[in-house]
Amino acid sequence: MKREGILFVISAPSGAGKTTLCKEVIDILPNLRHSVSYTTRKPRPGEVHGRDYFFVAAEEFRQMVEDGEFAEWAEVHGNLYGTAVRTLEGYRANGVDVILDIDCQGARQLKERYRGGVFIFILPPSFAELHRRLDSRNSDSAEVIQRRLDNAAGEIRESRWYDFIIVNDLFTKAVEELKAVLVAERCRASRVLETVGELFEI
Amino acid sequence: MKREGILFVISAPSGAGKTTLCKEVIDILPNLRHSVSYTTRKPRPGEVHGRDYFFVAAEEFRQMVEDGEFAEWAEVHGNLYGTAVRTLEGYRANGVDVILDIDCQGARQLKERYRGGVFIFILPPSFAELHRRLDSRNSDSAEVIQRRLDNAAGEIRESRWYDFIIVNDLFTKAVEELKAVLVAERCRASRVLETVGELFEI
Repeated sequence: MKREGILFVISAPSGAGKTTLCKEVIDILPNLRHSVSYTTRKPRPGEVHGRDYFFVAAEEFRQMVEDGEFAEWAEVHGNLYGTAVRTLEGYRANGVDVILDIDCQGARQLKERYRGGVFIFILPPSFAELHRRLDSRNSDSAEVIQRRLDNAAGEIRESRWYDFIIVNDLFTKAVEELKAVLVAERCRASRVLETVGELFEI
Repeated sequence: MKREGILFVISAPSGAGKTTLCKEVIDILPNLRHSVSYTTRKPRPGEVHGRDYFFVAAEEFRQMVEDGEFAEWAEVHGNLYGTAVRTLEGYRANGVDVILDIDCQGARQLKERYRGGVFIFILPPSFAELHRRLDSRNSDSAEVIQRRLDNAAGEIRESRWYDFIIVNDLFTKAVEELKAVLVAERCRASRVLETVGELFEI
């Protein structure tokens, strides 16, 4: 029997490194996909429509909200972000595990909707290091960076209700830890019994 | 702030490979120790008193039970096994994680006593393979092997209430999975916040 795909929801303040971490574990682990979100923000250099995000106009996004097409959506730093129900359900029904790289507001909506979801928060090692990373990204204005920093403290307090917290100090260690959480959740008894229970008459 | 050590409790039917698996992860992971149990069974070739078990007489064991020195104890296949409270508390207070390699009866006692314990069950890939492994061990009589097999079905049904189940089909994969569970549990939000919460005022 094939089990249902697991939803892994990953949040972090901007600059904590979640996008890079997610890409890395998707490269390493089989049967794991990135759920591509919709957004109204402008693409950054190198970002590809349909791979990193579906970049859409605000009007189109609003229409999708009205039509109930989103499992979660939120406004973050003045832009809209959302995950389509269709995307998630398609993976889950096929037993494919999905990583969602979304903010705390969206994560909260999914926490209520999907009981079996696994919620992971990525922390920077310190506020000072977060500032340094945002500066070195060179893609945002000083004003945007300041706004992200102001928001970070509030976002970090949200980490309390997540299942796991990974401190992204040393990148290779953070990758190992994120991978461990994903592999461990696949070994959760309720999930393993879905597939091998019958064999042992459990 | 130093967090309390985690209790990892591992059970499996004889022959599922739990002793070897535990040794392997203890070699790989830092800050992890094997909790040495007391037993009244005779040492197998190669087993060392104080490393594999504390081998004691039945009378001494009974006295320890009476004195409340055991966090758990059980009779398994006609022998007595127990974990001393002193052993566990010593590690926990020092922030050292401990692996206990014990049977389901003992595990149940710990489940009630230690809320934060992590319970892991190792399954053989099949009953046929379990039989093959017990045969090849060459240390037990045919009668003992049959008794172990008879008990296995009942023990395996206990896996339902464990937190994680690892199927020991391919040894290297099982090691990876057991290691993942241990690393992931160290990343559990409640535990990480014990150490980094203050830094971020969470």
